Amino acid sequence: MIQFRVGMTCGGCEKAVRSVLSNLTGVKSVTIDMSSKEVSVTGTASKEECMSAIAKIGKSVEFIPVF
Amino acid sequence: MIQFRVGMTCGGCEKAVRSVLSNLTGVKSVTIDMSSKEVSVTGTASKEECMSAIAKIGKSVEFIPVF
Repeated sequence: MIQFRVGMTCGGCEKAVRSVLSNLTGVKSVTIDMSSKEVSVTGTASKEECMSAIAKIGKSVEFIPVF
Repeated sequence: MIQFRVGMTCGGCEKAVRSVLSNLTGVKSVTIDMSSKEVSVTGTASKEECMSAIAKIGKSVEFIPVF
């Protein structure tokens, strides 16, 4: 699982992030917690692919290392 | 110029719509009026290309015929 903190401000932002990530090849699931702005992605898509897709819709994105 | 009414609820939504439209080949300008939710696109991109790009980020979109 890979996690990001994404600049989302409303349910519409959440939906946009979910849509672009779900469309990536290899993404199995997308979980979004709006209170913490945390987005979790499972599957085989890379960190870079996910971050690039999010950046393309103009949202700030920060990788959260999972220990 | 082609015009759409797009389901946007915050500045983040506006930015996402502006980003995906600006990335389309042939789009010259994107103007967004958040009070009316109207999005105006100039350039050579087709109505279908614009609507498909907006729908891909999970936003409702309605074409506004200009007379």
